[in-house]
Amino acid sequence: MAVYTEVGEEELASFLANYDLGTLMSFKGIAEGVENTNYLLHTQRGYFILTLYEKRVSRADLPFFIGLMEHLAAREITCPQPVKNRKGSALGELAGRPATIVTFLEGVWMRRPNVQHCSALGRVMAEFHTAGADFKLRRENALAIGGWKKLARSAGKRADEIAPDLSNLIGEEIDHLDRNWPRDLPAGVIHADLFPDNVFFLGDKLSGIIDFYFACNDLFAYDIAICLNAWCFEIDGSFNVTKGRALLAGYNSVRELGTREAEAFPLLARGAALRFLLTRTVDWLNVPTGALVRPKDPLEYLRKLRFHRRIDHARDYGLAA
Amino acid sequence: MAVYTEVGEEELASFLANYDLGTLMSFKGIAEGVENTNYLLHTQRGYFILTLYEKRVSRADLPFFIGLMEHLAAREITCPQPVKNRKGSALGELAGRPATIVTFLEGVWMRRPNVQHCSALGRVMAEFHTAGADFKLRRENALAIGGWKKLARSAGKRADEIAPDLSNLIGEEIDHLDRNWPRDLPAGVIHADLFPDNVFFLGDKLSGIIDFYFACNDLFAYDIAICLNAWCFEIDGSFNVTKGRALLAGYNSVRELGTREAEAFPLLARGAALRFLLTRTVDWLNVPTGALVRPKDPLEYLRKLRFHRRIDHARDYGLAA
Repeated sequence: MAVYTEVGEEELASFLANYDLGTLMSFKGIAEGVENTNYLLHTQRGYFILTLYEKRVSRADLPFFIGLMEHLAAREITCPQPVKNRKGSALGELAGRPATIVTFLEGVWMRRPNVQHCSALGRVMAEFHTAGADFKLRRENALAIGGWKKLARSAGKRADEIAPDLSNLIGEEIDHLDRNWPRDLPAGVIHADLFPDNVFFLGDKLSGIIDFYFACNDLFAYDIAICLNAWCFEIDGSFNVTKGRALLAGYNSVRELGTREAEAFPLLARGAALRFLLTRTVDWLNVPTGALVRPKDPLEYLRKLRFHRRIDHARDYGLAA
Repeated sequence: MAVYTEVGEEELASFLANYDLGTLMSFKGIAEGVENTNYLLHTQRGYFILTLYEKRVSRADLPFFIGLMEHLAAREITCPQPVKNRKGSALGELAGRPATIVTFLEGVWMRRPNVQHCSALGRVMAEFHTAGADFKLRRENALAIGGWKKLARSAGKRADEIAPDLSNLIGEEIDHLDRNWPRDLPAGVIHADLFPDNVFFLGDKLSGIIDFYFACNDLFAYDIAICLNAWCFEIDGSFNVTKGRALLAGYNSVRELGTREAEAFPLLARGAALRFLLTRTVDWLNVPTGALVRPKDPLEYLRKLRFHRRIDHARDYGLAA
């Protein structure tokens, strides 16, 4: 929630001279997006989002992200569209950062998604999974089990500053998931970060999805598990099975979850909870002095992880029998 | 540079139901404005800025600020226009904060203003001073000498953490300014915070001014002195007399500075430097844990203060003889 890189009007004007967007009429830093710096641009051609990629995003991955947005939009998944410069490239450089301009997507994200929103999310996620089938580029999930082990090592015993014995729990959990993780479920391109702030609505209608900077190739059901964690728990920590049912039924209406995916679901949900527990733990332990971002609460995901350890089957999340 | 108050889409929708602005199509927190929370709204009627007033702004002052924007715009000073709700009021309440919606003002603020920008600033400031003449409301300057004394007491000896002996320098400076401050120069409504980020340009043309939340009744020449400090020093701390000349000549072309104003100018510039040295010092010493705003450097204004102590006459800032 910050502007990490300040852009001057002169360097922005020279950057824009490479595009066919007309004169700059205003630009304002946006207090959204934890990973990158985002500005809202208004030019004679309309409204756009300018993104400067900060250090967490690898330059080598940018063609995957940009290509994915183009691929999805061509298949009627509404998302921001990269704008090409006069050389035909959607990737430029500004203020020493890789930078892209994408079209502005109308819509409001739901701070408190309701059952209808969860249902719409399920449908669009299944459409996303289906649309990605013929996408040519691949990107490994840097936050799969290998990545979790690195994060766990980086936190080390200091994780116990967040909750008693957390470092041991993380170690046991990684061992368990590593031994039991399903390797042969349906897989393809997943969003991997489809939290409410990345899904826009106009009224009750889903208007599009944004922020593809964790997208990668992984299990479809794991993507659903990430969303179940992010959308179907209430603020008090309770699981709302009506929302879970809506999400899973919405998904099933487009792409049916297989029996083995359903059986693996509780384990995938544990993994999805652990993944965000780990990144939040590391962020929490490494808030730099003068940070402009308030780290998110790791304990929220510890509670979710504990919840999933008690679940046996996707039926308990609301999957129709 | 932060969103202090998070607004939910539901409470925003009920707030907007009081206005004739059509359906909400998007809202995004803006990473600008240190005092208040600002969102950019897009509704069926266009683009607007929603401001939530945080604790530094007194509720009793809001009619002055809102009335001033309306008054100025009626006199062709381009600035955001408060939007009235269906009850005819431009002031509402949202998320427990006083809130206003104003029209979106196109333009870009100059990170590095040049001589032409300084000249345009001088002209618009003189137009502002002239246009305010028949504004009916009054607001005392809370950051005049009385306010400085309070700030100095609040910082106390801790100011010495910022620079050796700073607390004594502040004390002496306040004594000197209090004894010599001119009480009978031309006065009226001043902006009092016309820093570059509050002045928008489209190309080289000044397109409007924003952020009236320090506006008050005080000496016109003091307002010019605030701008001279904010616009005419280079990043290395040197004073750019060409910019000073442009600012003062631009001002003079609309409203001529009198002899006594010119004579008092070095003292007013010291006062203007001290005012920002003091607020920045207090902010620097009181950064809350988890602050989302990086405090501005007080030393920049200590250097400016020292510069002005060596100046005898407004000629030295570039005022035509």
